[in-house]
Amino acid sequence: MKLALDAMGGDHAPAAAVEGAALFAREAPEHQVVLVGDAPRVQSILREVGHAAAANLSVRHATQVVDMGDHAAASIRQKKDSSLRVCFDLVQRGEADAVVSAGHSGAVMAGALLVLGRMKLVERPAFAALMPALRGGGRCLLLDAGANVECKPSQLAQFAVMGEAYVRAVLHRPRPRVALLSNGEEPTKGTDLTRAAYALLQKSDLDFRGYVEGKDIFSGEVEVVVTDGFTGNVVLKTSEGTAMAVAGLIRSAVEKAGIGEKLGALLLTPTFAGLKKVVDYAEYGGAPLLGADGVAIVAHGRSNAKAVKNALFAALANAQVHLKEEIAAALDRAAHWLPKKAQRKVEEAGE
Amino acid sequence: MKLALDAMGGDHAPAAAVEGAALFAREAPEHQVVLVGDAPRVQSILREVGHAAAANLSVRHATQVVDMGDHAAASIRQKKDSSLRVCFDLVQRGEADAVVSAGHSGAVMAGALLVLGRMKLVERPAFAALMPALRGGGRCLLLDAGANVECKPSQLAQFAVMGEAYVRAVLHRPRPRVALLSNGEEPTKGTDLTRAAYALLQKSDLDFRGYVEGKDIFSGEVEVVVTDGFTGNVVLKTSEGTAMAVAGLIRSAVEKAGIGEKLGALLLTPTFAGLKKVVDYAEYGGAPLLGADGVAIVAHGRSNAKAVKNALFAALANAQVHLKEEIAAALDRAAHWLPKKAQRKVEEAGE
Repeated sequence: MKLALDAMGGDHAPAAAVEGAALFAREAPEHQVVLVGDAPRVQSILREVGHAAAANLSVRHATQVVDMGDHAAASIRQKKDSSLRVCFDLVQRGEADAVVSAGHSGAVMAGALLVLGRMKLVERPAFAALMPALRGGGRCLLLDAGANVECKPSQLAQFAVMGEAYVRAVLHRPRPRVALLSNGEEPTKGTDLTRAAYALLQKSDLDFRGYVEGKDIFSGEVEVVVTDGFTGNVVLKTSEGTAMAVAGLIRSAVEKAGIGEKLGALLLTPTFAGLKKVVDYAEYGGAPLLGADGVAIVAHGRSNAKAVKNALFAALANAQVHLKEEIAAALDRAAHWLPKKAQRKVEEAGE
Repeated sequence: MKLALDAMGGDHAPAAAVEGAALFAREAPEHQVVLVGDAPRVQSILREVGHAAAANLSVRHATQVVDMGDHAAASIRQKKDSSLRVCFDLVQRGEADAVVSAGHSGAVMAGALLVLGRMKLVERPAFAALMPALRGGGRCLLLDAGANVECKPSQLAQFAVMGEAYVRAVLHRPRPRVALLSNGEEPTKGTDLTRAAYALLQKSDLDFRGYVEGKDIFSGEVEVVVTDGFTGNVVLKTSEGTAMAVAGLIRSAVEKAGIGEKLGALLLTPTFAGLKKVVDYAEYGGAPLLGADGVAIVAHGRSNAKAVKNALFAALANAQVHLKEEIAAALDRAAHWLPKKAQRKVEEAGE
């Protein structure tokens, strides 16, 4: 496989991107990475990390960069030689198998829509985030994790189909349980949006378990949790904030504590390291954009080299399991219960 | 002060309610609690815990109970002799100063609206939840925490005014910083709802800091975070789920670990106890309903005796600082920028 990496995207770009690519190249010598960006800078960092001559790392020069303040769609349309746009062009022309970027997530969404296009029956692609779960397989897929701030019921139903296919294909779960995120478990709860999506999913062939609450994302009761992108973003950030607050409380308590507790913390170092691994975004492989006609992965903006490496491995896995084909097949199977476009118009008019 | 406690509300009622009242009565001998509910059962539990003769505990018999499955407004209208309805009647007649219940939160909202009424300029009361924050004063008020699933911009603006008044009056912060919860900090982010509320709050006299993300609730950067009740509920439950997941991960890692780590965990017991105190809902005093014409506190459905005791202390504090009067004064001061009813209609028609 050949992965196109936006070397200029992310808070620590290009260093973190280039170092992450070098780590990946060493661990996966049979696969290729194309580093797209400011070639002299990229090559200078490659020399620093001693990877200038790696056979499976190549550099493709791009003269422009999508800035975090850019308008998403305009940046893709107008900056035709930006590192991100070139990544999408490589995939679109069949010269690469996946796009990975830690940059402007809205621009990644726009690039997917404008350059790769959408899959059949998909109105809007969605970012999918793998959350840690205590029981079950240890992972729960949350989508949309932030691509679409305001959603329609038909879109939530499509997210459910795509998320279920992802968990089957990538996490090898035969029959993932799917739920809608709501403010209570009773079907009378929720908003107009969630209730309309509930009605659609009840008629589906999925293993639909109704509503779950925010705490159930981490309990392992279901493998796919569907929500709109606004709520999904709030869930991700709240979970991150809570984990950081808990870690900070432990740290400050240990600092203020006596020698016994300091020794205790020292003895628990391996446990805390394991915990950090679970809650640390760097361990996750970034969020795949499901529903685009090609593989695209967004890594956290704060990604370090390790997070970039993991995002490259996630992109590799998604490309290798033919995720796009799995999702297309799942959408085809769902065609009889997913609302058709004409029906959707009637629904919207009735809203 | 005299507090009306719904003895029949909550997963562990009436035992947890009665025991919580007994704890409160012992710690606050100068204040009164009226236990409203099934008098023979309540008195039998009081005898068990050795508090049957407490001078500041009285029992008021009520023949009905609001069940968790009841329709909120109908239960208040029709079950006129339910423990919850009788609590509200006591406050409405001036025979008690506050209502406390760990029961059906929708019915508490309905009781407040139908029996006590709303304060002037308030369209909908909101539940306010005190979240732990790392820095700042160590607390951040989140509202609406679940009372109103779908909100209007004018309602979010009212929540901001009420939340700010609460933090001034109860947490003694002179000039609380107020923010709107969104999916990013840039003013272009958010939904139609949050952007319209943003425009209102920009014109306000509050110390409005714009948008914050989910993680900022815990960072101490602002003291009041405003959102709709659907998102607020998701935030509360996600935060609870994350904290439980982190605690569970530490526990299972320690169980599987060697003798050194087991000793470490033992030495850290005081730290973990302190941590539990911060994340444990039982330590919190329940969520006050702001904007009702009277003090009402909803405790967590799973409240134990300690949580009920803390909810009674929260109700006492709210009644003692004349929170209702503080909020009324704040609303009066905000009258020149809060949308008038006619303006709101124009806004809604334009939506």
